[in-house]
Order: sequence, then structure tokens, then C-alpha cells
Amino acid sequence: MTTTRTQIAIVGAGPAGLLLSHLLHRSGIDSVVVDIRSRHDIATTIRAGILEAGSVRTLVDTGVSDRVVSDGDRHDGVVFRFGGDNHRIDFQELVGESVWLYPQNDVFVDLAARREADQGDVRYEVADTAVDISSQRPVVSFTGADGRPARIEADLVVGADGSRSICRKAYPAGTRGEWFREYPFAWFGFLAEAPPSHPELIYAHSEHGFALVSQRTPTMQRMYFQCSPGERPENWDDDRIWAEMRRRVNGNGFEIVEGPISAKMVLPFRSFVTAPMRHDRLLLAGDAAHTVPPTGAKGLNLAFADVRVLHEAITDFLAGAGEGALDNYTERALDRVWKAQHFSYWMTTMLHAIEGASPFDIERQRGELALVTGSRHGAAYLAEAYTGWQQAA
Amino acid sequence: MTTTRTQIAIVGAGPAGLLLSHLLHRSGIDSVVVDIRSRHDIATTIRAGILEAGSVRTLVDTGVSDRVVSDGDRHDGVVFRFGGDNHRIDFQELVGESVWLYPQNDVFVDLAARREADQGDVRYEVADTAVDISSQRPVVSFTGADGRPARIEADLVVGADGSRSICRKAYPAGTRGEWFREYPFAWFGFLAEAPPSHPELIYAHSEHGFALVSQRTPTMQRMYFQCSPGERPENWDDDRIWAEMRRRVNGNGFEIVEGPISAKMVLPFRSFVTAPMRHDRLLLAGDAAHTVPPTGAKGLNLAFADVRVLHEAITDFLAGAGEGALDNYTERALDRVWKAQHFSYWMTTMLHAIEGASPFDIERQRGELALVTGSRHGAAYLAEAYTGWQQAA
Repeated sequence: MTTTRTQIAIVGAGPAGLLLSHLLHRSGIDSVVVDIRSRHDIATTIRAGILEAGSVRTLVDTGVSDRVVSDGDRHDGVVFRFGGDNHRIDFQELVGESVWLYPQNDVFVDLAARREADQGDVRYEVADTAVDISSQRPVVSFTGADGRPARIEADLVVGADGSRSICRKAYPAGTRGEWFREYPFAWFGFLAEAPPSHPELIYAHSEHGFALVSQRTPTMQRMYFQCSPGERPENWDDDRIWAEMRRRVNGNGFEIVEGPISAKMVLPFRSFVTAPMRHDRLLLAGDAAHTVPPTGAKGLNLAFADVRVLHEAITDFLAGAGEGALDNYTERALDRVWKAQHFSYWMTTMLHAIEGASPFDIERQRGELALVTGSRHGAAYLAEAYTGWQQAA
Repeated sequence: MTTTRTQIAIVGAGPAGLLLSHLLHRSGIDSVVVDIRSRHDIATTIRAGILEAGSVRTLVDTGVSDRVVSDGDRHDGVVFRFGGDNHRIDFQELVGESVWLYPQNDVFVDLAARREADQGDVRYEVADTAVDISSQRPVVSFTGADGRPARIEADLVVGADGSRSICRKAYPAGTRGEWFREYPFAWFGFLAEAPPSHPELIYAHSEHGFALVSQRTPTMQRMYFQCSPGERPENWDDDRIWAEMRRRVNGNGFEIVEGPISAKMVLPFRSFVTAPMRHDRLLLAGDAAHTVPPTGAKGLNLAFADVRVLHEAITDFLAGAGEGALDNYTERALDRVWKAQHFSYWMTTMLHAIEGASPFDIERQRGELALVTGSRHGAAYLAEAYTGWQQAA
């Protein structure tokens, strides 16, 4: 059994865990990161693709990635499509901000390369991870990729280990609350080998359900359509998928560009928050503490916002500011979490076909879409949230 | 049986019917208005008290009332109260508009006086009103206040006869749709003999339910609190009412000013729309065509918006523009109706305690209140709607 002593043990080498490790390194604080997945697995798992301006600035300003601006696509707006027409929300004009299309797995690739170049201690492919926070020197134990048991002893443990977090389960019984909401639908996501159908994302509301036309590269596009949570990807061949997309988005001169389909998956919809985000020497960040439905693309951006605040809290704590600095993390992070939870809920309920909705609610939903896109203030309210409350933050 | 021939027969002498009659008179178009209520009854029934800027302009610019600006109170904002604190939404600063506190029964008094001064034909206290739209000369028949049967033969009949409209029921079967939504709560409204607790309306969200602190005169205030639809006014004495108000709005240095209570009533909550708003020679306006829940004070203002559009449609029709002018009324009016329906629904669901709401939904609701009041764009979106979309109209 080898024991490594460090200041911060981080469980989870996804973008949240690696960004925290990177920011701490820049502040002269040591950390060790462990993850049960291989570096290749994380690098090739398709996830979200939209970065808020603040997320991009964090990556660029701290030297993680220039690729996000050179290879990523700046999007100055999005399109809401309903009643057969496109209604563009112009982020730049409304709030002076943009978002970037840059896949989450590329964010990981950049962060992993940066941590490697800085000789960061990141252990992929570990097993049997366990967290013990019973003493003032918490311990993360695991079996290394070499098959040998190991432990990390640290001042603090950070759980950045995603929605099925084992760190969250390490809270003693009764020390945290859970808030959640299930939705009666899911997204069917797929990659299409085709040129972009449109330069910006199209959030399409239709009587047949929601669809999202997004992009990835000049030759590969990412798209989604609302489906039942029990839908099975293998029941959907290319013809059936394109027929579904066509009836939800085509019309009035707009036609989606079709092509061979791959990487089909069903994404669950769940809103979840746990609090406090700190117990004793353990802190949670990102999906380990909260999940948002994908509408509005807040998941990764919220994780990065957590990490920025957590980095400050840890720095203050290690500089002797006391436990108040750690408690402060929960309070500051949750303020943004609930804003993002509301925004994600709002985008979801405004755009999806809601099973069992009354004819009144269907018409009211159209009234809302017309009001939000037709009012400069409504559109700015949405644009401000979508781009991540940069002025307000 | 006396028969009166006129151009427009109007059923309902509330503010919508009398305003239409007044605007038509100014355009040289004759009308006759009938109502089953007495002038005194309408003048003394307590209803809504907030007028949008556009409603005020209509009353002032067409010579109905100077009292609305001399006796009414201009409100440049409202207060949202939640989490124990007041958050003011400044209409003037955000969208350059205001609303006016001026009771609906005073609007009626002014309109009735104006119609009387212009020798308008308004028949109060009629009975047995019936509408026959089977011919190209529709007929409204009734028993006059003198007990004698009478009929009005007109080019068009307008139903401005409120939510229990008999005109709406005159549509042949299958010629209109209905959209509605019930809410599991109501408002308990009362008058309090006391000075104002605050110069502007306070929309108070609390765990015990919603409350609205509004004003009427320097010595008489109008207040409401969310209650069960089955609540009975006689079960609530002054002490019980004030105890309920205190726990919903008092705190952090704010205290409601109490006094003797009168005019207790339970207001139902219902969203309702019928369309088309025209069938053949019959047109509906105001509550006869749509009801909104009272949160956000859109009812009377929406009726006035209908009447402004209907006045134009009737003028065009009588000038020979054909039936298209009448069809156009439904389309133009409904656009605003669904905006107002969404706004009223939004204000209602954002501010009330929703029975059966999950802990997640309760926190998300607080997140929304913080987001809307904390974002200049969110507050402007709300202010624009509350003041009646003056710029957009």
C-alpha cells in the first residue's frame, strides 16, 4: 500500500476535476486526481458542446487552451423555431456576449494535456475508489492501474466524480438534503455525417415534440429530438430518425441536411441538487452536486463556475482563513446553481411537448415563445442566462 | 313590443361595453347598450384597480376622464417581496412607463357619466336578454326596466357581458373552441380602513402562500391573500385575517398597517379563452371572450385592448371594408390575449404557493424570483408586460 500525501485529493478527472487541479497548481497548491475511466474513454465520450463566455475565458486566460477560440466556433446567437418560423436571439446585440461551440471531450483533451505538461499527478483507470472523511486528514483509497492498492492523504477531498458520485455517498446520514425533479421525456441524440444545416443552434418547438439542431465540425453534426425515456437507440434506423427530424424542423423553406447517422444515445432528463456542497473536509463540485436537464447547455458551465469559486475557497482556507471559507463555497455556488436550475427548467418546459398538457397550456406555451422572442427585454433575459450572466457575475 | 334600430347593439354596460359605445359615438356610429344590472350596482361593485398606461391614455385622450390622472395614483413600480426582503421593479427606469391605481368602478362611473352627457342610449336593469344572430339583422331582445318587452335590431351585436356571457352561448354548436385552465387556489380579498402600508403594490411570496398589499384611497386599502377556492368569507374575522396577512408579509422591519375590515370576498382563479371572437354578426370583447387570473391585473386592460381593436374593425366594416375587417379583429385581439394569458399564468405560478410542489420546485421558484428581480433584463421583461407592452403595441 503506497500512500501519497498531497493538499487536495480530487475524485474525478473530467473537466471539473482537471480544471480545479490546474487552477490549484497555478496557485501553488498540490493535488492528486483519480478516475476510474481511462484517458481515452473520457476523451472520446461525446457530451455537451456549448461553452459560456466565462468558461472560455477561464480556459484561455489560465493557459489551458487556445484551441477553444481557434478551432471552436463563436456563436453570437441561437434560433428558436416555432410555428414554422425561425426567431433568432442575437446574444451580441442584446447582451454583448457570445457562446462557443467546442465539444466537452475536446475541453478534456486540452485540460489533460495541460496537466500532463505541468507534471500534474492524474491517475486514470483506478478501481475500488473509496473516501474516508472521518479524520482531519481525509483519505481517498483505490486500486491503481497497476493493480496495487494505494491511498491519498490530503487536507481536503473534492468530489468531482459526476452524477453517480461516490463522494456524495460519503456524507454521513442526515447531513445533506436532496432536491430533484423528473421529466417525462428524454433526448435522443445522434451524430450525422453531413454539413451544417444552419450556422447556429436551432431549438425547435413543434407539436410533434422538441428537436435541437446543433453542430460539431464542418462534416459532422450533433442533433437531438425529444423522446420517451424508455426509447431504445437500436429501434431507430437512419430513415426513421430523419423522418422524425423532418417533421419537427422542416418547413417554410428550411430543410435539414441529412447524412449517415452514428453515436445514437438516449439522454435522461433530471434536475438534481444536493446541499450543502461541503461536509467537513469533503467538497462536491459539478455533476456530483447537481444535474440539469440538457436544454440550455448549463451542465459543464455550471461545473466550471463551481470550480472557480471552489478554487478561491480552497486557496483562502489553506491560507488560514478558517472553515468559514469552505462554508462560503456552498453559499456562493448554490446561488448560481438555482439560477441555472431555473433557466434549464424554463428552457425545457417552454420548448418541449408536455405529455398531458391541456389545449390551454399548449396555446399558452406558444404565447410564451412569441412573447420571449418578440420582446427585446424577454430575448435579453434569455440571452443573458444562456451566455452565463457575465455582467451580473 | 318596441323595436329600436341602431348600428351596434352592445350587451353589457361594464367598462368594456361603455368604452366601445363611447368610441363608436366619437366615430359617428350609433349604438345601444343593455345590462341586467343597475347603474348603482355596477358603480359600487369592487373590482380591479390597476390601469395600464394605454388604458389611461384611452380614457384621457377620448375625453372620458381626467379624474384618472387627478384622483388616480401613478405607480412607477411594484415590489416583489420574498425571502423576507423587498425587491422593487422600477417601471419608469426599466421601460419608461407607469401604471395607474384607479378602481374599475370609478372607470365605470366616468364612462357612464360621459355616455349620459353624450345622450348615449344605455339601458340598465333589463331582464330576459336574448340574442338572435340567425339573420343579417341580428336582434337583442329583452324586458326593459319598465317591464315592457323590447328589441334592438342592429348591424352587429357585441357581447361585452362578462365571463358568464349569454352572447358567447349564442354561437351555434361547434363554431368556437374553448381553452381553459383551473388553479387549485383563489384569492381572499378585503378592504381595510387604514392608511397605506406602502406607496406601491407589494406582491408577497411566502411559504404560507401569496399575499398582495394594494391601495385604494388614503384611508382605505385593498388586500388579498391566497386561499383555498372553497374558503368562506364568514369564517374569517378581522383577527384571523390580520394574523394571516402578518405571517405572509411582515418581517425585517416591514409591518402591515391594520384596521377594520369590510367587503370580504373570495375571487376564483381561472384562465379561459374562446375563439374565434367573432361569429357572423356577433363579436365578443373582454371577459365574455377570455378570463385571466387576477395576478398581474390584466383583466380590465385586456378588455380595453379588445375594445380599441374592435372599434377599428367595426369602423372599417361599416365603411364597407367587408367581413375581412371583422375576421381581422379575432386575429389581432388574440395575439395580445395569449401574451396576457401567459403573463398572468407566469405571475401566478411564480408567486403562489403551489400545493403538492416538490421541495425542488419550491427552491426553483425562489431561484426564479431572484433571477427575475436580480436581472435588469428579467425585471424589464416583467415591467414591459405589467405596463402593457406600450412600446411593442
